[in-house]
Amino acid sequence: MTKKKPLLLITNDDGFQAKGINELIKALKGLGELVVMAPDGPRSGMSSAITSLVPIKYKVEREEEDLTVYSCTGTPVDCVKLAINEVLEREPDLLVSGINHGGNMAICVNYSGTMGATVEGCIFGVPSMGVSLLDHHPDADFTECVRLGRALAEKVLAEGLPHGTYLNLNVPRLIPVKGVKVCHQADGRWIKEFKQGEDGGGRPVYWLTGDFRNDDTREDNDMHCLDEGYATLVPCKIDVTDYAYLSTLKNWNF
Amino acid sequence: MTKKKPLLLITNDDGFQAKGINELIKALKGLGELVVMAPDGPRSGMSSAITSLVPIKYKVEREEEDLTVYSCTGTPVDCVKLAINEVLEREPDLLVSGINHGGNMAICVNYSGTMGATVEGCIFGVPSMGVSLLDHHPDADFTECVRLGRALAEKVLAEGLPHGTYLNLNVPRLIPVKGVKVCHQADGRWIKEFKQGEDGGGRPVYWLTGDFRNDDTREDNDMHCLDEGYATLVPCKIDVTDYAYLSTLKNWNF
Repeated sequence: MTKKKPLLLITNDDGFQAKGINELIKALKGLGELVVMAPDGPRSGMSSAITSLVPIKYKVEREEEDLTVYSCTGTPVDCVKLAINEVLEREPDLLVSGINHGGNMAICVNYSGTMGATVEGCIFGVPSMGVSLLDHHPDADFTECVRLGRALAEKVLAEGLPHGTYLNLNVPRLIPVKGVKVCHQADGRWIKEFKQGEDGGGRPVYWLTGDFRNDDTREDNDMHCLDEGYATLVPCKIDVTDYAYLSTLKNWNF
Repeated sequence: MTKKKPLLLITNDDGFQAKGINELIKALKGLGELVVMAPDGPRSGMSSAITSLVPIKYKVEREEEDLTVYSCTGTPVDCVKLAINEVLEREPDLLVSGINHGGNMAICVNYSGTMGATVEGCIFGVPSMGVSLLDHHPDADFTECVRLGRALAEKVLAEGLPHGTYLNLNVPRLIPVKGVKVCHQADGRWIKEFKQGEDGGGRPVYWLTGDFRNDDTREDNDMHCLDEGYATLVPCKIDVTDYAYLSTLKNWNF
């Protein structure tokens, strides 16, 4: 009896045609059977959004040895749910989401569709990791992401991850990067978030934009390490409970 | 010099016309100046999604003494961003999101637009709380939510919340509830998540549905306490870093 090849589920939020996910497929080739279930177009900033008011669909886009690529009309989280509930014959051994065109450090983890899909894999109990490059260009250079993404995927396949924990890998534009730093999520936020414009009738409209302000003074925050030219790896939890605050709250009378 | 009235920002994910948010407005009347910026229609399951590919707009729906209601074309998070960046003259003293038609306990906090808006308030440094009723009916009875929501809002206005911590209040359908329990997020997930159907041309489509499976054996998990007839209050953090796992990860060589 031969051991089955590892099954890797791949997704993203930029759509199945994006360069980032195709670089990721190349990076993971040879590690097992690859199944891609990715949105049929861009779904950036979709966080963990799910589609409940309309149904979703999927179709095969490409089949090769050890690789099947499906596209899906839903969000990144829908893609993961659909693949695991309806399409895959067994639970995947690893989920990799990305490679995102754009960084997902600091609070970006909260808005990111790439990371939403990663969270979803983790909820299913699948060891899950997201990979992002701090470059929005459609033709960005993913060389360092490919190298580090593959190495991390091999490590996660070998070591597994604790229940409820997923990984967030971000890679700066610098080639080569200075190394990888294990970090915590920087404490900061976006400011000046809208650019005002006008619609065809002269009514004001608001376009999302903004600058990131890093309020974190601790040395190992991911934003700071990325600024210094390091790739960053942040372990994250799906349980958001503030356990330290439970005892205070238990004393509230209201 | 008189002290300014507290400024309360109210939002939801069911839209400004939903019964839940209108019950919330009544509940919070008298606590200060109320500004509602809510989606112009249902945005359930939008999590922390943001709108970046198209612009958003807003308009006034209603003005009364100490109350202005705006509707917005965006997501719940867009509503909060737009209100704080562009509409309000000062930072709000409190953000309340809800009252949601449907529970947001356990991992639902991850998918919920109601809680996405609450997270967003917290990112801005505004004391923020979400309120949800475990009843999806459009004409649900919000009596207990109104009572507990107001009492909690008064408490948060008086006490504040730690930086990076927000509150998630869930109320069961039972009237009266047995009390309020301070809980942690239950560890569980949705299963059997799709119902297959057909489109007009006979092609398979997938509708989101599912059952919740509670895997949590700890006594103070929110799902269990709700099942027992208690309202639950979970303090949550925006920093999702798994600090306990950092040291293990630092020993990985990859």
